[in-house]
Amino acid sequence: MKFKAFVYVNLKAGYSDPEGETTAHALRGLGYNVDDVRSSKAYEVTFDAPNRAKAEKLLDEMCRRLLTNPTKDDYRFEISDPK
Amino acid sequence: MKFKAFVYVNLKAGYSDPEGETTAHALRGLGYNVDDVRSSKAYEVTFDAPNRAKAEKLLDEMCRRLLTNPTKDDYRFEISDPK
Repeated sequence: MKFKAFVYVNLKAGYSDPEGETTAHALRGLGYNVDDVRSSKAYEVTFDAPNRAKAEKLLDEMCRRLLTNPTKDDYRFEISDPK
Repeated sequence: MKFKAFVYVNLKAGYSDPEGETTAHALRGLGYNVDDVRSSKAYEVTFDAPNRAKAEKLLDEMCRRLLTNPTKDDYRFEISDPK
């Protein structure tokens, strides 16, 4: 079965995020009342798996092995229904 | 009211996404049966707005003016309930 998943990767709390800070500063410069911006990466992954439980296990593995750095990143994912 | 929103920015269909292609290639090299990876950016924005309708309007403006490049990017956002 083909599964489509969204993976969101962001820096753990406590890690400084210069891109987010710069973006927040620029938005304030344009007149928006912005408290905070945190930047993150997202991946849309289409992959094969025999069932949903296995798809979750595989995707979690992909996140830990390649898509994220477990030392500094948090991640979460959403898997949509297979086609 | 304080609103928190997630903004997802990805390349429009038809634009090549070398980062996504490289990631897909690397995942296949690790043995995963991956069809396709598309990479994108996400921002978590915390900002002030008087109400939800105004918050959506402001955020859409921020997306068009700064967070995305309307020529090549698609975007969508989710605003959570204010605190």
